[in-house]
Amino acid sequence: MIGGSDITAAAQRLSRLVRHTPVLKVDGDSFGLSHPLTLKLEFLQHTGSFKPRGALNRMLRAASLPKAGVIAASGGNHGAAVAYAAQKLGVPAEIFVPAKTPAAKLTRIAGYGATLVQVGDAYADALAASQARQAETGAMGVHAYDQPEVVAGQGTVGKELEADAADLTHVLVAVGGGGLIGGIAAWYAGRTEVVAVEPIGCPTLNAALAAGAPVPVPVSGIAADSLGARQVGLLMFDIARHLEMPSVLVSDDAIHTAQSWLWEHLRIVVEPGGATALAALLSGAFVAPADARVGVVLCGANVDLASIGIVS
Amino acid sequence: MIGGSDITAAAQRLSRLVRHTPVLKVDGDSFGLSHPLTLKLEFLQHTGSFKPRGALNRMLRAASLPKAGVIAASGGNHGAAVAYAAQKLGVPAEIFVPAKTPAAKLTRIAGYGATLVQVGDAYADALAASQARQAETGAMGVHAYDQPEVVAGQGTVGKELEADAADLTHVLVAVGGGGLIGGIAAWYAGRTEVVAVEPIGCPTLNAALAAGAPVPVPVSGIAADSLGARQVGLLMFDIARHLEMPSVLVSDDAIHTAQSWLWEHLRIVVEPGGATALAALLSGAFVAPADARVGVVLCGANVDLASIGIVS
Repeated sequence: MIGGSDITAAAQRLSRLVRHTPVLKVDGDSFGLSHPLTLKLEFLQHTGSFKPRGALNRMLRAASLPKAGVIAASGGNHGAAVAYAAQKLGVPAEIFVPAKTPAAKLTRIAGYGATLVQVGDAYADALAASQARQAETGAMGVHAYDQPEVVAGQGTVGKELEADAADLTHVLVAVGGGGLIGGIAAWYAGRTEVVAVEPIGCPTLNAALAAGAPVPVPVSGIAADSLGARQVGLLMFDIARHLEMPSVLVSDDAIHTAQSWLWEHLRIVVEPGGATALAALLSGAFVAPADARVGVVLCGANVDLASIGIVS
Repeated sequence: MIGGSDITAAAQRLSRLVRHTPVLKVDGDSFGLSHPLTLKLEFLQHTGSFKPRGALNRMLRAASLPKAGVIAASGGNHGAAVAYAAQKLGVPAEIFVPAKTPAAKLTRIAGYGATLVQVGDAYADALAASQARQAETGAMGVHAYDQPEVVAGQGTVGKELEADAADLTHVLVAVGGGGLIGGIAAWYAGRTEVVAVEPIGCPTLNAALAAGAPVPVPVSGIAADSLGARQVGLLMFDIARHLEMPSVLVSDDAIHTAQSWLWEHLRIVVEPGGATALAALLSGAFVAPADARVGVVLCGANVDLASIGIVS
């Protein structure tokens, strides 16, 4: 299993290529919460999400990168991260995304100079197409969540968060394929309770925990472009089971309310997947004990501003 | 003149009522800059701008607050801050703003329970009306920039910035009436060069430095609602002259480009006044030496998202 030393090594490897994103500490009582809140502003990362951490750690761990470069399937954010990483390291990248990927994410991927292929309705379709293509070209696959170097890279979010807010009792993290929460939970290793939050429309971990193993689930809803993996990763599932990770679900309405809340109260804009963890707290899907000190990871902001529907 | 001890005292007074806002450190080379950049994310402050620091310091310094409460004139951000401060301290507030104040600011002022009066075309008209009203009611006036407690309160931004980024050689700050930059410059007292940035349409400090004293200027342009004081404060002018503060001007186009840049590269939304300081750097109106370490204060984000015109 991925451990603290893997994440510490990843942090050293990444130190000049990713941002140590800041935290914002707010008192909860202005917001109807009985405990203080520490927000990890990870949407300020290069590419607008946490994803470069894992992609870069995977690529930097390789003894060498093939001439064909790297290839990845993505709902958008991972693709932007692999494109960014490839540009930084000077290799080509080919990115497969579903047809309905938001314009904000397509713009980012193309902006980093990657070749962009839109195929199928869901992340899983893009993944299948990318694997077929990879067999032809010999490019190195950078998985969106289920490779040890990717999970360890995402775990550096937890390392930074603990350094900046050492006293947290709970950390809430959104789950798609589970690379981010897997890495964060591996970092904390039980020192802090890491709580999984998923949209009702993309319950990959919730379904896996119920079934005792990762199982495919249908994906839908406003956060599906970032959290719509068809099933949770094997690596993160082992971590979640080992740590008996709590898993809660939130509605699309709760996610949209959390997006609006972040803008109204804090002048922060995030995408639906970036507001999902906070939605658990604001909706009451997760209720922390009165003496808790709660951290929430705001993990992505690749959203078309016009689509948010917040006017002031 | 306002000194470090006034600002340290203000910081102690404010510690439980304002947020210590974080900084984001970014490398400049991704953005065509030859030096690293430290952004002070002060738009994450309560009310969406730095203004509660000064308003609260003014109100907390008073021996007692009159039964009529507080009264203020504002382009919007100061009014929201006084309304917020009054709500926190349990006194009534009456806020005078110009007729064309953006909806995002009106919503905030009313949301904190203040009485809102819209009058005239510019901040100066609202100020005159508020002063007439103050003579009737006996409320305590909280000036938007030209009171020592207000300037000292805003100076706590500089204190936090130096604590979080001790090595800055330059700090760029937008100027309206000059309370924020006056306080920050008073804090640094020459240890770091504080550079004044104003829109071409609101050149209050630039005109005052040319004239040798604060003089009224016409105000216009996209940042006029936050930077459109008719003339710079006497308190800040003394500080600016004493420190030989550099003053640069930027166009509305440069301000809008900086707003777009912040969203595109960093997923940060600010209002035009909040992007004005950065505009000087991106447009070349201010060029830092190659070995500089530059800080920029992003001071406000009370903007209607729909008005920004950034789609992705």
